[in-house]
Amino acid sequence: MKNILIIGAGRSATALIRYVLENAQRHGWFVTVADADPELARQKVGSHPLGRATWLDVMKVNDRRALIERADIVVSLLPAHLHLEVAHDCIRLKRHLITASYVSKEMYRLGDEARDRELIFMGEMGLDPGIDHMSAKQKIDEIKAKGGKIIAFRSYTGGLIAPESDTNPWHYKFTWNPRNVVLAGQGTAQYLQNGKYKYIPYNRLFEQFKVVDIQGMGPYEVYANRDSLLYREIYGLSDIPNIQRGTIRNVGFCEAWNALIRIGLTDGSYPILESTDLTYHGLMEAYLGNSDKNGSVKERIADFLDVDMGSDVMNKLEWLGLFRKKKIGMGSATPALILEKLLLEKWKLEEDDKDMIIMQHEFEYELEGQRKLLTSTLVLKGKDSVDTAMSRLVGIPMGIFVKLVMKGKIKATGVNIPVMQEVYEPVLEELKEFGVEFIENERDL
Amino acid sequence: MKNILIIGAGRSATALIRYVLENAQRHGWFVTVADADPELARQKVGSHPLGRATWLDVMKVNDRRALIERADIVVSLLPAHLHLEVAHDCIRLKRHLITASYVSKEMYRLGDEARDRELIFMGEMGLDPGIDHMSAKQKIDEIKAKGGKIIAFRSYTGGLIAPESDTNPWHYKFTWNPRNVVLAGQGTAQYLQNGKYKYIPYNRLFEQFKVVDIQGMGPYEVYANRDSLLYREIYGLSDIPNIQRGTIRNVGFCEAWNALIRIGLTDGSYPILESTDLTYHGLMEAYLGNSDKNGSVKERIADFLDVDMGSDVMNKLEWLGLFRKKKIGMGSATPALILEKLLLEKWKLEEDDKDMIIMQHEFEYELEGQRKLLTSTLVLKGKDSVDTAMSRLVGIPMGIFVKLVMKGKIKATGVNIPVMQEVYEPVLEELKEFGVEFIENERDL
Repeated sequence: MKNILIIGAGRSATALIRYVLENAQRHGWFVTVADADPELARQKVGSHPLGRATWLDVMKVNDRRALIERADIVVSLLPAHLHLEVAHDCIRLKRHLITASYVSKEMYRLGDEARDRELIFMGEMGLDPGIDHMSAKQKIDEIKAKGGKIIAFRSYTGGLIAPESDTNPWHYKFTWNPRNVVLAGQGTAQYLQNGKYKYIPYNRLFEQFKVVDIQGMGPYEVYANRDSLLYREIYGLSDIPNIQRGTIRNVGFCEAWNALIRIGLTDGSYPILESTDLTYHGLMEAYLGNSDKNGSVKERIADFLDVDMGSDVMNKLEWLGLFRKKKIGMGSATPALILEKLLLEKWKLEEDDKDMIIMQHEFEYELEGQRKLLTSTLVLKGKDSVDTAMSRLVGIPMGIFVKLVMKGKIKATGVNIPVMQEVYEPVLEELKEFGVEFIENERDL
Repeated sequence: MKNILIIGAGRSATALIRYVLENAQRHGWFVTVADADPELARQKVGSHPLGRATWLDVMKVNDRRALIERADIVVSLLPAHLHLEVAHDCIRLKRHLITASYVSKEMYRLGDEARDRELIFMGEMGLDPGIDHMSAKQKIDEIKAKGGKIIAFRSYTGGLIAPESDTNPWHYKFTWNPRNVVLAGQGTAQYLQNGKYKYIPYNRLFEQFKVVDIQGMGPYEVYANRDSLLYREIYGLSDIPNIQRGTIRNVGFCEAWNALIRIGLTDGSYPILESTDLTYHGLMEAYLGNSDKNGSVKERIADFLDVDMGSDVMNKLEWLGLFRKKKIGMGSATPALILEKLLLEKWKLEEDDKDMIIMQHEFEYELEGQRKLLTSTLVLKGKDSVDTAMSRLVGIPMGIFVKLVMKGKIKATGVNIPVMQEVYEPVLEELKEFGVEFIENERDL
């Protein structure tokens, strides 16, 4: 095996492409990077003698299949809904497939066909999902191996801005997909507490955040993820009475984000009429019921939110420019799109800004009659706005896994996520070279 | 023309079938009632010599077409998404079509074909939509005819329980589709105030209700409908600066319904796990975040809602049985389905219960320099739980319209809703015989 095909050369591809090209000479690989924007692919490949950039419109079936046929292993960085086309080609042409996206039901259905052809289709091979699975499953297997019984598992991840680059009252900047941030939490969060299912609807998800002490970093806010219950079986925790996954934000974020939700600005389901000429001030006014009331729009919003004019929440809203008489300048946009556009300006990473990933797992378990709490924490900062911790931690695990497959180190076949020892051990071991070190702390309860 | 086909013999068909059969002899009609449940159709037709009940699985194309071909006019009472199949048959076989459902975009696209064949496809020919269009448009045309300029149009409708049958703390019982009541308002309500668009997201729709004085009835609560802006053009009110449609409920309903929304019980998007053996009490507990807190589930819900234990809201929740340790007994049901099932028991019409329809239009207009407010109000009660005002006001307008078409009184062709004078004048006139009389009151502002 020598040919690697990477489909997609966007932001999430940078660290992966660099890793694979850096390993290409030693292992005798040839790397093809395909993108709808061939210039982008060329930038990422540079003048590397073992790399080639090429144009691909992924909807052109013949072109796509021709590229896949010439590869031994395919990494798809396409938007999640396009993976399935590539996966069908990989079945047909007998090629391995790696993605960082959530594995869909449709993808899981290809498991038998992949297994019959001795192929590995590895999904959720990035950061979250990805490193979260690997680091959690490693600890779970360790605790079980020494005879421990796990009673609670909590896992929190956040893609944040490093303290030294934290220059705004939200203490947040975009380091990844803005749309996901704007729409986060729509639906109902589910988790397990003392053996009972718990539900938090969107309308109070950001009200019911909890404050979590992150080792070495102090207090952060965590709001519940929708998917806490999903991985119980695959983690070997089917009967666990407490499980919760959550997203980490800086202190003060959740209350202010909840204000945006209550006002109505995170709704992506309908267009604001005549939004091109509407101002942000006008938009806020449109969400206030009775226009006969006295007071400025800002005062009336503070009144509706039941906070003081000088409160942190109002400062955050004001800082976003929501009370400015500046035109929105987007036609027929949904509130969520208008908010996203505004946040893209305000929460933009400056060139030298460093992002910061925090991941913390908490395992409560019983061993020989003693209850223990093991806390395992990763904090990693990026270098600048291009070489972010986020893009490294999404890309490098895929790169390492490509290497393992190319070297014939992976026995698993079928559709998988990285929870098996033959995957997590070598990947986590090599990730240490990239600064991915979990600090551990254990104490009796 | 002599043959009428009514597809669907359910609750909404009763008054329509009775009206058409009562008119059959005088006009020489023959009426076929088709339903997937032929016994239901037989019950509704009875032993009427000019009526026939028949079995129809509407998905069986040949059977459906054979029935439609033998008719001159078709009334479809099918669920809204099935009208389109019938409509295509009606185009092909050149038959008129009448429904009480909202006219979909797909249906509107058949307009040219219907017009070319000189057919009338009349939708929204029931109560709401239906009588609301006709009664509003009649007044709008009258005001315009005398030179008035309409500045504000507000229109409110409620399907309620009559005061003499009002026996529960919610002052509400189901007189129509329970699912629509449970899911009501999901999305964002839009309306126009002083020339400005206003938006109310679901999370505060039932908080921002307004209190409206219904002529002769006193104060009621009104929450905003999603579709207030839809009919501006077709009503001839394109430039109106104030337009709002709303739904009428008894005083105290909105705050308590908002409590159900905040708890999370109106969400139809995900199943509650292991809901069969869960109790209502357990379900409420599942929506409470921190189970370490003291107090009963009821106390903690009151605390979360920020109301007293003895408040009206808590009385309403308690009366529903939400704090009872009784099993839900439904597997993998969504919260909305669980709530619907509970409400079906608690809000059931007793045999002799009378329902009550309230519709009120308010028109503000200027005439010769004087600003005026015209209020037009319909209040109509049903006879009992079968012969409801709701089923009469949905069915009889369709029946009257069938008669008008059969007698050749309708010139309009194409896909329409009942806003033209040749429709609303005779329909509203004949509806008076059924007690449908709007009380009018006009005063200077």
